[in-house]
Amino acid sequence: MKKIAVLGYGTVGSGVVELFYKNREKIEQKAGCALEIGYILDLRDFPDSPYADKFVKDMGVILADPDVTAVAECMGGVEPAYSYLMQCLERGISAATSNKELIAQKGDKLLAMAKAHACNCFFEASVGGAIPIIRPLHRCLAANDITAMYGILNGTTNFILNQMLSEGMSFDDALKQAQDLGYAERNPGADVDGIDACRKICILSSLVYGKHVYPDSISTTGIRSVSLEDAAAADALDGAIKLIAAVERLEDGRILPLVSPMYVPHANLLSRVDGVFNCLEVCGDAVDRTYLCGRGAGKLPTASAVMGDVIEAVKHQCNVFSQDWASAEDQSFVAQPEAQTCGMFIRLTEDYGAETIANAVAPVIGDADVDMIANACVISARLDAAQRDAICKAIADGGMQIAAWLPVLDA
Amino acid sequence: MKKIAVLGYGTVGSGVVELFYKNREKIEQKAGCALEIGYILDLRDFPDSPYADKFVKDMGVILADPDVTAVAECMGGVEPAYSYLMQCLERGISAATSNKELIAQKGDKLLAMAKAHACNCFFEASVGGAIPIIRPLHRCLAANDITAMYGILNGTTNFILNQMLSEGMSFDDALKQAQDLGYAERNPGADVDGIDACRKICILSSLVYGKHVYPDSISTTGIRSVSLEDAAAADALDGAIKLIAAVERLEDGRILPLVSPMYVPHANLLSRVDGVFNCLEVCGDAVDRTYLCGRGAGKLPTASAVMGDVIEAVKHQCNVFSQDWASAEDQSFVAQPEAQTCGMFIRLTEDYGAETIANAVAPVIGDADVDMIANACVISARLDAAQRDAICKAIADGGMQIAAWLPVLDA
Repeated sequence: MKKIAVLGYGTVGSGVVELFYKNREKIEQKAGCALEIGYILDLRDFPDSPYADKFVKDMGVILADPDVTAVAECMGGVEPAYSYLMQCLERGISAATSNKELIAQKGDKLLAMAKAHACNCFFEASVGGAIPIIRPLHRCLAANDITAMYGILNGTTNFILNQMLSEGMSFDDALKQAQDLGYAERNPGADVDGIDACRKICILSSLVYGKHVYPDSISTTGIRSVSLEDAAAADALDGAIKLIAAVERLEDGRILPLVSPMYVPHANLLSRVDGVFNCLEVCGDAVDRTYLCGRGAGKLPTASAVMGDVIEAVKHQCNVFSQDWASAEDQSFVAQPEAQTCGMFIRLTEDYGAETIANAVAPVIGDADVDMIANACVISARLDAAQRDAICKAIADGGMQIAAWLPVLDA
Repeated sequence: MKKIAVLGYGTVGSGVVELFYKNREKIEQKAGCALEIGYILDLRDFPDSPYADKFVKDMGVILADPDVTAVAECMGGVEPAYSYLMQCLERGISAATSNKELIAQKGDKLLAMAKAHACNCFFEASVGGAIPIIRPLHRCLAANDITAMYGILNGTTNFILNQMLSEGMSFDDALKQAQDLGYAERNPGADVDGIDACRKICILSSLVYGKHVYPDSISTTGIRSVSLEDAAAADALDGAIKLIAAVERLEDGRILPLVSPMYVPHANLLSRVDGVFNCLEVCGDAVDRTYLCGRGAGKLPTASAVMGDVIEAVKHQCNVFSQDWASAEDQSFVAQPEAQTCGMFIRLTEDYGAETIANAVAPVIGDADVDMIANACVISARLDAAQRDAICKAIADGGMQIAAWLPVLDA
């Protein structure tokens, strides 16, 4: 009988406990041994819980029990989660965590500690909730040179953008609905300002490119400025506006991670990922493109990913794969949006007419395709910063005013 | 320096060799040791190959070399691949195979042999080509009770159905185009008759439900009878016809695997998976629905999956996870289509009019939703065999004739 401990009894932590007892037989079979939840750490009291006898307030109790094989960290925030996990790993107790803020800030340190003490720090649940992403990236696609990743990694903003388009709701109304449905927090900044998506692309970039990318290094734009008019124009141009967390490897060897609303053409499956679903497109030299899609948040979906990690941690009491990445004080390998090449979705302040738009941009883009409606256009060809500036200038010179422009995701 | 051997130098085998030398540094880093392709087994001669010195015709040479740690089996067919892999596994040499026919027929035996000799038989490439499916199912989703899986698992048929819809091509013309493009074999039976998809759902069913499901046990219908009229009617009814390999767990504990063309509503992401792409929808009690999507075949995509397995096999020289399943002479746990409940897509031989159709089916289905056009309808509610018979009878009694009916995939 091996013991596991659940740290934090909020939405995800209580989901882990619920899922364990629901599917215990299956979980023990996969783990190859009898398992029990030995402790649940939470500062609050749960006297009426069926697991009341398992609650402890002192991490020391868990650390002192030699039967504890793995902990499921579902507390959120950097501290005290970070200190607790470092203490666990130092003792050879493996960790499974859903905490993206923690991994985005301290992943390098945690993984190094796990490696040094022949145990594991798994974090499948930290990106894309229930969706298998970390293992597929690191193992199944291990033989690939990963050239880019593009993800819808925040369900709340995807829900809001979806409601704006399908229901014609304003951003504020859609946000309020998301809050009423429990998708968005009362303080929705981490979601709508792109901070949550930024943490996730940090984790994926660090994992794939081998050096820790810190959230501060990443240009992050949320969806507050996306208007109903933008959504409608994108739809008329056979696409959708999505908050995309992206990372591309540039020709000079640097990487360019980025969080921004983007125009996604319907030819790309990402445009079809609606509601609170998440999806990651992975581009590799051998696989071409792979899409991993599912529920990116929620009690049981996230618990599913945490328990998958717990099973592997219990089964393999050695450091099972080299998923560590190097600490990187020097972040000069991280490029900024000036280095980006991308197509442009441009919405104008009024209906100037497709022909007027075409005449203005034609001299700059030459033979490249432009799709136009009366008040907006999509240039799919990738343009560098100078070319983008030239387009903006040509439109202004043509007597038109740009209401908004967004990068275009490749089809 | 650990040696690997590639068995078979056809499309996939040559892709494995190409990918290894292309990304060797990355692959060795992930494997944690220096690697070399020691041998390539093929009965043919390749005197002009840059790897000419590696070719052998005698499996005994490979078996006799104690430095060989893993083999990549890309020969196809059951024999001699089966005998070769059993000999490898018996000696503790791990195997990575892309051979779906082999795993569908002999997976139980190979996995038992690997377990007995503390090595691994991996088969990520056997289902969905480049798409991470086997590991995600067995590991990331390990804590779930998997209730159903629905997959587009054959790219050739998906391409053909796609061309029929988007280009208005007949089945025969679309098949010819697929052959000209190299997607379909000159003898296309394994693809268009559903045999390839059947093998893949065998593998997934065995893996998830723990008992070997043999191809003979699975009701398999290909796409030869799907007409242009069916494709057009499905499109008009906001869906697409796809060849679906499915397995559902029934309430009585049996499982129902099945290969059949189905109507997929556009609300389900599977309807958007076009061309030669594959996609698997996995339904679990905790994850709800997860979609894994990408290139299901091709030289480098398949080689990517094989090399991912090779890396893990080299890195972990112990049986790393309990993915074995039991042999099962008694296949009575496998139900047949009579036990299926499903919605119905019905196309009639002529335009009887939506109202006539509605009047005929209403008495049978009561309040359930029906979408109709003049010559076809979709009943989304799940019906059992008796209810389906009643619908067919009601349509006949209403003076109409059914041209075709197909099961409906849930939205």
